[in-house]
Amino acid sequence: MSKVRLALAQTNPTVGAIQANLRQIITNIDEAIEQGATLVVFGEMALTGYPIEDLATRESFLIEAESAVKELTQILQNPTYKDLTVVVGHPALTKANKEHGWAIAQNCATVIHKGQVLGRYAKHHLPNYSVFDEYRVFVPGDELLTFELDGLRFSTVICEDIWQSGGPVAELSKNQTDVTLILNGSPFEIDKDDRRLELVSELTKKHSCAAVYVNLVGGQDDLVFDGDSIVIDSKSRLVARAKQFKSDLVLIDIDSKDDLTVVGEHHLTKPNDNWQIWNALVLGLRDYVHKNGFTSVVLGLSGGIDSAVCATIAADAIGAENVFGVSMPSRYSSDGSKDDAQDLAQRRGLNYQIQAIENLVKPFETQLELDGLAAENLQARVRGVILMSLSNKQGMLTLTTGNKTELAVGYSTIYGDTVGGYAPLKDVEKTLVWQLAKWRNGYAKSRNEIEPIPANSIEKPPSAELRPDQVDQDSLPPYDVLDAILNAYVNNRKSAKEIVSYGFDEQLVTKVLTLVDRAEWKRRQGAIGPKITGVAFGRDRRLPITNQFKG
Amino acid sequence: MSKVRLALAQTNPTVGAIQANLRQIITNIDEAIEQGATLVVFGEMALTGYPIEDLATRESFLIEAESAVKELTQILQNPTYKDLTVVVGHPALTKANKEHGWAIAQNCATVIHKGQVLGRYAKHHLPNYSVFDEYRVFVPGDELLTFELDGLRFSTVICEDIWQSGGPVAELSKNQTDVTLILNGSPFEIDKDDRRLELVSELTKKHSCAAVYVNLVGGQDDLVFDGDSIVIDSKSRLVARAKQFKSDLVLIDIDSKDDLTVVGEHHLTKPNDNWQIWNALVLGLRDYVHKNGFTSVVLGLSGGIDSAVCATIAADAIGAENVFGVSMPSRYSSDGSKDDAQDLAQRRGLNYQIQAIENLVKPFETQLELDGLAAENLQARVRGVILMSLSNKQGMLTLTTGNKTELAVGYSTIYGDTVGGYAPLKDVEKTLVWQLAKWRNGYAKSRNEIEPIPANSIEKPPSAELRPDQVDQDSLPPYDVLDAILNAYVNNRKSAKEIVSYGFDEQLVTKVLTLVDRAEWKRRQGAIGPKITGVAFGRDRRLPITNQFKG
Repeated sequence: MSKVRLALAQTNPTVGAIQANLRQIITNIDEAIEQGATLVVFGEMALTGYPIEDLATRESFLIEAESAVKELTQILQNPTYKDLTVVVGHPALTKANKEHGWAIAQNCATVIHKGQVLGRYAKHHLPNYSVFDEYRVFVPGDELLTFELDGLRFSTVICEDIWQSGGPVAELSKNQTDVTLILNGSPFEIDKDDRRLELVSELTKKHSCAAVYVNLVGGQDDLVFDGDSIVIDSKSRLVARAKQFKSDLVLIDIDSKDDLTVVGEHHLTKPNDNWQIWNALVLGLRDYVHKNGFTSVVLGLSGGIDSAVCATIAADAIGAENVFGVSMPSRYSSDGSKDDAQDLAQRRGLNYQIQAIENLVKPFETQLELDGLAAENLQARVRGVILMSLSNKQGMLTLTTGNKTELAVGYSTIYGDTVGGYAPLKDVEKTLVWQLAKWRNGYAKSRNEIEPIPANSIEKPPSAELRPDQVDQDSLPPYDVLDAILNAYVNNRKSAKEIVSYGFDEQLVTKVLTLVDRAEWKRRQGAIGPKITGVAFGRDRRLPITNQFKG
Repeated sequence: MSKVRLALAQTNPTVGAIQANLRQIITNIDEAIEQGATLVVFGEMALTGYPIEDLATRESFLIEAESAVKELTQILQNPTYKDLTVVVGHPALTKANKEHGWAIAQNCATVIHKGQVLGRYAKHHLPNYSVFDEYRVFVPGDELLTFELDGLRFSTVICEDIWQSGGPVAELSKNQTDVTLILNGSPFEIDKDDRRLELVSELTKKHSCAAVYVNLVGGQDDLVFDGDSIVIDSKSRLVARAKQFKSDLVLIDIDSKDDLTVVGEHHLTKPNDNWQIWNALVLGLRDYVHKNGFTSVVLGLSGGIDSAVCATIAADAIGAENVFGVSMPSRYSSDGSKDDAQDLAQRRGLNYQIQAIENLVKPFETQLELDGLAAENLQARVRGVILMSLSNKQGMLTLTTGNKTELAVGYSTIYGDTVGGYAPLKDVEKTLVWQLAKWRNGYAKSRNEIEPIPANSIEKPPSAELRPDQVDQDSLPPYDVLDAILNAYVNNRKSAKEIVSYGFDEQLVTKVLTLVDRAEWKRRQGAIGPKITGVAFGRDRRLPITNQFKG
């Protein structure tokens, strides 16, 4: 028998649902002890969900979290749990110096041993970049917590602590740590997973210890926690990897820092990038829908690629029977588009209806004497009113189908095609939308399922169909060029000059950057959607609307 | 002749308009030396505008700011400026340790003396609460800059440095500072002004020095910098006060730390709270319009109090001739409402048109079979389409007229009455809307002008008029009760339990808090508007949409 059997509990909490999260924690503990675990480790803030943002500034919230920790401690006094140690993440009220504003909370890991609180660790490095505002709401801790179980020494740290240098993490070797327990709320980002593995490996090398990296899983507003927790021994060997995009409980036998064994089946690798991105989008949508009390979604089906991919993600997330597609053809809609929309709905068995907009648009055009751009926007806005009316009538969440490229250059009608509470493709650039569509069809084919997305929707030139014979490329450069420029400007913060130096036409670069800057006010009013890249629009990129800087 | 004649330059820069701001700085310097100044002090980031948010993470932006400082230094080498010292605020690239994320900038004050850079101070205390994210984008400095002019010793600090303890500000006396120069970007908040005076007085007492507090003026997105710069001697006597809500240049003769004299006329007091709030709203709107390249605004005129106050603010800000009011009556609009809308437009001479919505609403109702709430929302959305169509046709900025109370409880139709780029009343609760309306009418009366707001609009019970005989109080508690509960919950972060303990009905408190929480997704998609209270909706209050916490 091993010294310690550790259960890595990768749970999917809901922000603010403290009692439900506590029950989830207890269920995991029960399952873990059934499998012989003596130590159970949860992710960052598993008790309250993460990130809690300004909830951390509400004393009543912190008090409720604290009393849930107490409740858990009392439950663990039951003889059933007599040999058990639990490490759980939660926010705590602090009396520490609040020199930087009104922070009154710390981001903590509490160790409960035999039904008694053995100690509490407070996160030292508070991420305050990208989507994170932890310096805003938390007071940093500065002491490592190390405890001993059956001759093995465990230390706890939290997420950002291992992404920065200095702080308590520097004390790991001094404290003779055998196994570092890292509680994380680390959101999915394309390629970030490898960075985590790398960082944890470096840690095990540097401090000559094993490491258990426990991540959360689940969607929370614009973030998708992908799980993918890992265990690495002191020789930097990957011992175990939890599921990605699913809750999981992984058992590890630990005899020494270089003798860790996973219990049962395990996979050390994971599927390709397209699979990961797709599953991030599916989980993000599913959790947004369910955690906000919806059961169904409604979206416009234009016959184009964006709405086809959105509908397919939604069907994968919550079942085709809960997806309501609406075709809203106008005088400019081609027969092809109408057919493609219907084809899409039929392939997957989505609910489908047609609402022609001609009789709704005409009275506005006449009364307000609209033409040109105003008349184009009108069509999109009438469609917006239809979708929101159906949403109001049936309590469905409206999805907005715009992609990151459109959002970047403002190629959308505000209060028109932008209406909705959730934007599945918000952080997916147009070229990636096509790539995902093809991948998803291929995935279906490989499983002998019907390809969900009509080939036409993938192959035809994209068009907003707001005037005769319009295609996107009338107003925009080819999407591969556009996405490359946007990637340099938005994700990599490059200047016009630098982007031109990569070989792009100067006039084009100026035009694209101006479009991006001018669309800031529209983006500010946009729906949230899952972040999958290094820089998503939203709280990940905070620019003034009133901004005359060019460059 | 005094030792030093200091010019306090309270300017209104535009974020990102570095060259224009530089010209504004030079114009102020020229005016100052014409008046015999030997030292000119500008506000925080006067060169780039403030706050610059993530522009601080763009290297090209920082390089352009730096080269503008160089340009200014070179200009000051001209013999015209040979005896001059200038202190100017700007962001600077730094090679300092970027331990907390990707910040590469510092928030600086550069002292230019006789056309040479004498030194540079970097802000130490970085506000990272409320609307501020400075820890996100700046690296803190930690050294006080003290320089001598004609036997007087001046030290520079920046804004938050005097709101926190510790840091370079603690060295003021050690450095034998006679006059502390405080560069600020301090936004207006009801009652905050007195806090500034108090803090600066404390500083002069503690360090036995005089203080020159230079604030910016102007609207920047959701912030209104109100100017109101102050000068206090080492005996804590208020020596001078610059204009509030206007650019200003105040000259002060300094002979010693307790001998400061303002040059010319001056007022040490300022008008009442209503005047201040009104002028904050006017300046916020004017600068949003002009700095974003608009000349005119369009808004719906319902005959109600909110749209009447919005239209009056707009007329005060950009002239009645640039305000386009649209009455959009439905079958449920009373004759009184229609008359009140027209009366409002006539009193002030606004542009005015009527667009009845019946013929636009009917086709939707029929085609989509709408009734109940869906039909109510439809009317608001049809009005939104009208306003946006007129905005598109004529290039006008759409104003959305909702107040803070509505926004709090979600008493609005998203994509309906919420459409628009700017929300003048976003941070003005309903009871304050009435108070301001009465005040504004009284102000007009006192100046023998026509009262701009129809008495009817102030006196009648508020109604959305979306169904027969509807009044707001069908769905909501009386506004004085509602605003009191909201103030406790939103501004003071109190829990349901605490609010009930103040004497409010428990069921009502639960209902109101639930409404507030549920409306988070709508607020997230709302237009920006000027912050005037301690906690405005927007980046001042960051809560998850997905949030099941009650309490």
